[in-house]
Amino acid sequence: MKKIPWQNRPKGVKDVIWRYSANPIIGRYAIPTSNSIFNSAVVPFENGFAGIFRCDNKAVQMNIHAGFSEDGVQWDINPEPIQMQAGNTQMIDSDYKYDPRVVFIRDRYWITWCNGYHGPTIGIAYTFDFKEFFQCENAFLPFNRNGVLFPEKINGKYAMLSRPSDNGHTPFGDIYLSYSPDMKYWGEHRCVMKAAPFNDSAWQCTKIGAGPVPILTDEGWLVFYHGVIKTCNGFRYSMGCAILEENEPDKVKFRTQPYLLAPSEIYEQVGDVPNVIFPCAALHSLEDDRLALYYGAADTVTALAFGHISEVIAFTKQNSL
Amino acid sequence: MKKIPWQNRPKGVKDVIWRYSANPIIGRYAIPTSNSIFNSAVVPFENGFAGIFRCDNKAVQMNIHAGFSEDGVQWDINPEPIQMQAGNTQMIDSDYKYDPRVVFIRDRYWITWCNGYHGPTIGIAYTFDFKEFFQCENAFLPFNRNGVLFPEKINGKYAMLSRPSDNGHTPFGDIYLSYSPDMKYWGEHRCVMKAAPFNDSAWQCTKIGAGPVPILTDEGWLVFYHGVIKTCNGFRYSMGCAILEENEPDKVKFRTQPYLLAPSEIYEQVGDVPNVIFPCAALHSLEDDRLALYYGAADTVTALAFGHISEVIAFTKQNSL
Amino acid sequence: MKKIPWQNRPKGVKDVIWRYSANPIIGRYAIPTSNSIFNSAVVPFENGFAGIFRCDNKAVQMNIHAGFSEDGVQWDINPEPIQMQAGNTQMIDSDYKYDPRVVFIRDRYWITWCNGYHGPTIGIAYTFDFKEFFQCENAFLPFNRNGVLFPEKINGKYAMLSRPSDNGHTPFGDIYLSYSPDMKYWGEHRCVMKAAPFNDSAWQCTKIGAGPVPILTDEGWLVFYHGVIKTCNGFRYSMGCAILEENEPDKVKFRTQPYLLAPSEIYEQVGDVPNVIFPCAALHSLEDDRLALYYGAADTVTALAFGHISEVIAFTKQNSL
Amino acid sequence: MKKIPWQNRPKGVKDVIWRYSANPIIGRYAIPTSNSIFNSAVVPFENGFAGIFRCDNKAVQMNIHAGFSEDGVQWDINPEPIQMQAGNTQMIDSDYKYDPRVVFIRDRYWITWCNGYHGPTIGIAYTFDFKEFFQCENAFLPFNRNGVLFPEKINGKYAMLSRPSDNGHTPFGDIYLSYSPDMKYWGEHRCVMKAAPFNDSAWQCTKIGAGPVPILTDEGWLVFYHGVIKTCNGFRYSMGCAILEENEPDKVKFRTQPYLLAPSEIYEQVGDVPNVIFPCAALHSLEDDRLALYYGAADTVTALAFGHISEVIAFTKQNSL
Amino acid sequence: MKKIPWQNRPKGVKDVIWRYSANPIIGRYAIPTSNSIFNSAVVPFENGFAGIFRCDNKAVQMNIHAGFSEDGVQWDINPEPIQMQAGNTQMIDSDYKYDPRVVFIRDRYWITWCNGYHGPTIGIAYTFDFKEFFQCENAFLPFNRNGVLFPEKINGKYAMLSRPSDNGHTPFGDIYLSYSPDMKYWGEHRCVMKAAPFNDSAWQCTKIGAGPVPILTDEGWLVFYHGVIKTCNGFRYSMGCAILEENEPDKVKFRTQPYLLAPSEIYEQVGDVPNVIFPCAALHSLEDDRLALYYGAADTVTALAFGHISEVIAFTKQNSL
Amino acid sequence: MKKIPWQNRPKGVKDVIWRYSANPIIGRYAIPTSNSIFNSAVVPFENGFAGIFRCDNKAVQMNIHAGFSEDGVQWDINPEPIQMQAGNTQMIDSDYKYDPRVVFIRDRYWITWCNGYHGPTIGIAYTFDFKEFFQCENAFLPFNRNGVLFPEKINGKYAMLSRPSDNGHTPFGDIYLSYSPDMKYWGEHRCVMKAAPFNDSAWQCTKIGAGPVPILTDEGWLVFYHGVIKTCNGFRYSMGCAILEENEPDKVKFRTQPYLLAPSEIYEQVGDVPNVIFPCAALHSLEDDRLALYYGAADTVTALAFGHISEVIAFTKQNSL
Repeated sequence: MKKIPWQNRPKGVKDVIWRYSANPIIGRYAIPTSNSIFNSAVVPFENGFAGIFRCDNKAVQMNIHAGFSEDGVQWDINPEPIQMQAGNTQMIDSDYKYDPRVVFIRDRYWITWCNGYHGPTIGIAYTFDFKEFFQCENAFLPFNRNGVLFPEKINGKYAMLSRPSDNGHTPFGDIYLSYSPDMKYWGEHRCVMKAAPFNDSAWQCTKIGAGPVPILTDEGWLVFYHGVIKTCNGFRYSMGCAILEENEPDKVKFRTQPYLLAPSEIYEQVGDVPNVIFPCAALHSLEDDRLALYYGAADTVTALAFGHISEVIAFTKQNSL
Repeated sequence: MKKIPWQNRPKGVKDVIWRYSANPIIGRYAIPTSNSIFNSAVVPFENGFAGIFRCDNKAVQMNIHAGFSEDGVQWDINPEPIQMQAGNTQMIDSDYKYDPRVVFIRDRYWITWCNGYHGPTIGIAYTFDFKEFFQCENAFLPFNRNGVLFPEKINGKYAMLSRPSDNGHTPFGDIYLSYSPDMKYWGEHRCVMKAAPFNDSAWQCTKIGAGPVPILTDEGWLVFYHGVIKTCNGFRYSMGCAILEENEPDKVKFRTQPYLLAPSEIYEQVGDVPNVIFPCAALHSLEDDRLALYYGAADTVTALAFGHISEVIAFTKQNSL
Repeated sequence: MKKIPWQNRPKGVKDVIWRYSANPIIGRYAIPTSNSIFNSAVVPFENGFAGIFRCDNKAVQMNIHAGFSEDGVQWDINPEPIQMQAGNTQMIDSDYKYDPRVVFIRDRYWITWCNGYHGPTIGIAYTFDFKEFFQCENAFLPFNRNGVLFPEKINGKYAMLSRPSDNGHTPFGDIYLSYSPDMKYWGEHRCVMKAAPFNDSAWQCTKIGAGPVPILTDEGWLVFYHGVIKTCNGFRYSMGCAILEENEPDKVKFRTQPYLLAPSEIYEQVGDVPNVIFPCAALHSLEDDRLALYYGAADTVTALAFGHISEVIAFTKQNSL
Repeated sequence: MKKIPWQNRPKGVKDVIWRYSANPIIGRYAIPTSNSIFNSAVVPFENGFAGIFRCDNKAVQMNIHAGFSEDGVQWDINPEPIQMQAGNTQMIDSDYKYDPRVVFIRDRYWITWCNGYHGPTIGIAYTFDFKEFFQCENAFLPFNRNGVLFPEKINGKYAMLSRPSDNGHTPFGDIYLSYSPDMKYWGEHRCVMKAAPFNDSAWQCTKIGAGPVPILTDEGWLVFYHGVIKTCNGFRYSMGCAILEENEPDKVKFRTQPYLLAPSEIYEQVGDVPNVIFPCAALHSLEDDRLALYYGAADTVTALAFGHISEVIAFTKQNSL
Repeated sequence: MKKIPWQNRPKGVKDVIWRYSANPIIGRYAIPTSNSIFNSAVVPFENGFAGIFRCDNKAVQMNIHAGFSEDGVQWDINPEPIQMQAGNTQMIDSDYKYDPRVVFIRDRYWITWCNGYHGPTIGIAYTFDFKEFFQCENAFLPFNRNGVLFPEKINGKYAMLSRPSDNGHTPFGDIYLSYSPDMKYWGEHRCVMKAAPFNDSAWQCTKIGAGPVPILTDEGWLVFYHGVIKTCNGFRYSMGCAILEENEPDKVKFRTQPYLLAPSEIYEQVGDVPNVIFPCAALHSLEDDRLALYYGAADTVTALAFGHISEVIAFTKQNSL
Repeated sequence: MKKIPWQNRPKGVKDVIWRYSANPIIGRYAIPTSNSIFNSAVVPFENGFAGIFRCDNKAVQMNIHAGFSEDGVQWDINPEPIQMQAGNTQMIDSDYKYDPRVVFIRDRYWITWCNGYHGPTIGIAYTFDFKEFFQCENAFLPFNRNGVLFPEKINGKYAMLSRPSDNGHTPFGDIYLSYSPDMKYWGEHRCVMKAAPFNDSAWQCTKIGAGPVPILTDEGWLVFYHGVIKTCNGFRYSMGCAILEENEPDKVKFRTQPYLLAPSEIYEQVGDVPNVIFPCAALHSLEDDRLALYYGAADTVTALAFGHISEVIAFTKQNSL
């Protein structure tokens, strides 16, 4: 397998997660029609990497595009959005698509995204080759966002994190878990974790949502997530991390009280939506003890950050809420 | 089977639906601890009727109680709320229960209600005798209200109407349909009908929600529902009717542009929440061409109204939105 | 001319304005399709009276209907809404019509109302016979309500009071005056009077709007208007009175600090919108020193109140804000 | 001392608190200028009773008036509002006065009310005879309401309950305690009790505020208070009771989970602000084990309810939150 | 006539509209008292150009100032605001003036702006020399903004676009057309175009408003306008273009689905109101096929952009909503 | 005494207040755990300066830290927050601490801050050495912010400015004065100055709050304060100045209509809360006629500005509101 992108921690830096020095890796106008490219997901594929990218066009319509890369940093993004074919249903209506995640389970790549069906809900599709895509039944009723599949079945069922919400700029939101025997019918909904009390951890006191596909470690499932605080000048999105029980992933073992990464670079602080760090994918190598985190910055561009898995786990355990 | 409650249309009245002259049939203090008894559901049972009643107690905690009646008008309500046992799950958490519906399918009575699990969602339980109740997995993630089961399987699956919403006094809401092979996992979610445009039918322009269990007629499924308008002095809830395709109940054949019943009696206009008519059950006799509609009035008491099924269908077809 | 409706002040009552003992004079279901009949206007016509009535139908669509009466109390209202013909324009679009006023100027009866043209604005029409109606250009851009014409030209121009607002349940609103040489183009907009400071006269602190057509008296124009306060349970509409300069009616000479009539009868306090008194017409006889005020009650029914013109003027001067 | 008003519990009633059969005892138009008379306070005085009444006039300006009664039921209210003289300060500005309480401490009667000084705060005055009134420094900075003095010094200091809030229809509010050595400077502020969690006691989940002057009993201070829930049609005010530690009255020993009295009579449900019960005074006789509670109903009229002190205490202990 | 400002399209750029490389052309502190200079209008004048500039002073009072330039880029702005004389009225009240437009019609220059008269409405003035200014009647009742005159009479009447709104940070707004025979009375109001559906063109889904004076082309009137989207961190203003029928300018022939220019430079993204591009003037040369667009950036500074008229028209036709 | 920090006015600059060229002087990550360091207070101490710093940690918990400096520019901040001991009370609860001020009165340094006690209120503590801190009774009931002590007793009492508010992102707020004989009980509350009318001085039209400790000059008390305007993209905080009567500091002699300093540098415009200048301390030397103002920038970093006292006074008198 191809090596994941990597850059050593800069000297003098003590943070557990550090940014790629050449951020952002994908600019807002990287394809001709785009207004912005952000909140996107990548996965190892063949000899390199494939990705599903949120590209808002200049009419500010939200859609997802496939892309390929040899090194995970330089991306060739298809200027045309993905055309879905019917998967396990004929009903593949979609007013818009955004904030995709992608994961390989058994024999194929599954994509989830926020799908516009009378409001936002969780769309599901699969592909074998990132050329043909097959759209399935939406997982849930509206209104929902941030649907993230686990990379393997749990207790024999598919498992998905999601963030029920409402039809606007939701000022609340917690992370739930649901199961499905077949990727079509979903149930056994459990509350996993909630926005934190203001006094305990204000950066995640307004709403939270799962980010990259969970990573199975010896400690359990490593889940990066975004947390939001509402200041008097709008929402601010930062990134934290939680560790869930391997076999009962609605049980939270640890969860960072401090954030891991918060908007402080100009490309995170200035853009279409200022002060946003929104992680959607994490390439990882357990043997190299490396993480490459992809995140949307300011709802405008795509950026990259790095860390050591062992350090993230240690930090999460030592700084748990 | 016992005759359903009935009273002929008063002379001079031309309305399709008319009220019981001795309304309300259940007062707010009908059990010692209650603050209000309303939005409740009844069903034929043995030689009479059984019901599931929403009784808010004087701490204004919302719960559901079983009750029995010989004639459907005089009710003996258990002063203790229903104690649930585990049904198809051990997870039977419930912060509150309200707005129940009840329906007999095959071998048992199924109850749905608005269940408090980190916000409102749809609770499900079954009983054989209205003494022992077995709570199942919640149908959906929060936030949802007004879950109403069809009285038989459709295309081999259980079918439920519901009204996704948010965690407050939701100022929006449409009716959706979902299917389940097993009453545990739900999918195939479809939008059935939406709040109407203000200019077309303002009484139902803010939100709508299914009421009684649908009634299968030659024209399709007869569904009474509530519609809401937001005036400058709050919400006003009225009742309308729709007819859905028998085999594809996400298709609306007809839907009343005018309301069938709107708050105009003092017990509907004055109470804990003024100006509310909220139907939750409909006893019916196809052979007698009769309907007995149970509705909550002003979120305080329970009232009864009558109509002829054939007239309701004719009216709905002739006055369709 | 026919005598206007009248009933002497009840014994023991000291109020300047008193209610008709048989209120409401028009019930909510007075025509077969109506949900409510209120906020309506009347005018002497031939040997009796004619009126333009706001009748919301049972789809809660708002429209205006013509009606006739011999005594001003018993009304025969056309169950069909008015069908407009083209007047001084071909553009007679109208999503809805409500809150009409009617006034005779020179050779014809002019009707103004809140007209739905991409939001509420002021519609204008004329009739000679209350059978054929000719709709003219809307007076203003949206958003506006409560357009009330003066019964004669002022300084050679038509003059209209109105209440600019927004597209919802406006929580603000003042009375303005505009002029037109031709009932087509309007200008010379002047602010006449504003909602009162809370500490001075709270019943009219949220918004105000002109009611009946102004009455010319020796003191100037007598203008009844509604004033609104926002309580924690919604808006409350009461009635006051102002006297404007005869030749410069944007100058307020006097204005009641106390209200003249506020919701305190059950038909004013309970209904589709509780706590509303909304005057839209005033029959008057200067020689008899009598006023008959027509007002909508609770946005549901139409009621009548009486007073002596001289007393109203005296009260307004003595209790001026 | 004069006997406090009393009426035995009606037969068949089991409630701890019951209403006076001739409610309301003071109508909205009981003085010539009034729009409403409610939320008022009474106290034994000479051979009968004196009271401070909130009378909103017909300009809906809020003020307080003195009144006298022989039996506590028939009241003679001064049609002129109280004219304050300077007490312990020259600064006796007051934009409005409402919701008074009155208490005898040592040598004089102290009155507290919601005083308009750049927003609502707690006004203080004293009188010896209910003829001359001396206004003191406001206790607190805005924004505050429901200031209620204890009837004796605690640990050598005056003690006052209050409900900090904001400058509008506050949707939050808890009860605090403050101390003063001299009725001029206040400090040692303590949170006493908060609005209850929705799931535990929804009738008091939005805000709470102390009502009558606390009554010292063997169990501690008996404090009646109002609690508020926000429905989709506005606020609803009910009455509950708490028992505070005698010497540390910021410690709550017991507090009713169910309400004691909630709006269910037409004069409580219909009026300027529907669905309000707002207690401001309690005459009591420990030896007779009697309570006479005065409360404002629907922000419009004044009503009376009764109870046995011992029963209230027992109920509060048995039904504590 | 003087050549309008111009700079060729940078190499590699494919956008229809491109920015001036030395933006912003006017800094926020360009006159001694200013806090910001933006949303300003220019016009050819004598041997160069004249302009009307919105200069907010350091008390953040909004006013308009005259200025002159030889090349349209370097501006000499009068540090004193314009002093108006009476034009067609004595009533020239003005609480504030902002967002001016200027146009030459027949014999004089007409200026329109947002004029503070009991709220925002459309002010009108004329000048012959940019030294003496004569203020006329406001065109409309409040509340209105973005009044833009056509550069010639249409069907014998003056024509003006405007954007009715409310008295705050209006979250809605569409473009209307009105006519006047005399610049004093206005009527024949028509809705021209509305904010776009979110799914079709989200950048203009919240509100829209006309920008520069329309330019007559063979295809009709070329109208640049701003469109607004509400993100979770506030409003974002971008620029689009529409083509209206020459003789019936309430008919929209084409309208850009994608934006032409959106905030992406630091001086557009950062300032008093981040993420604002607000065009108010367009110098053009049909013979040179050139446009010079002036726009306010971030409500702080003034910037310049260029384009070819033919390309803008072609783009608008090919990318029409 | 040590010289206060100073830098001469840059050439060409005419502003009364100018920025330090090396701003910000304290970065957001100046201590290992911090997310941001801003809104902090300094005071001369021993041979240099001491300070109380608001350091939000990476869990975005707000706390105050002590720090020392030789020159007032380079600061050594204690990475651990201040641990309070009991001062004049045992009740030293504190959910959070932010926005400190510090002042020397007689024998000790007093610190005030926004203290979390069931919402924001004014915390008080004293220290002799910036090592041991003794927390006293909170000055007021919640909700309050921006408590600022005068540096000496006035009329024999301690005097404090504060800004009563509510429990959220308060959209209103005026400056009040309160007195205390003993730093424990507070009273004699007076309104000092209010947010300005929009038309007069919009930068301070939403809310205002005192900043540094007042400076006694020949003209009276020099009080720097922040003023806030609400734009469509959030709040913007600028700095102004007022002069209060020496012996009656609730009397405002002068107050700047224009601001003295408003966000226009990138570190003020971009950060956790964009567009914030928030002054909390002013070192001054009357003999040198110098001021060194410390202010928080963008709720992220700490910056420094300079001015001549005499010029500030002259400017305030000449540009008074």
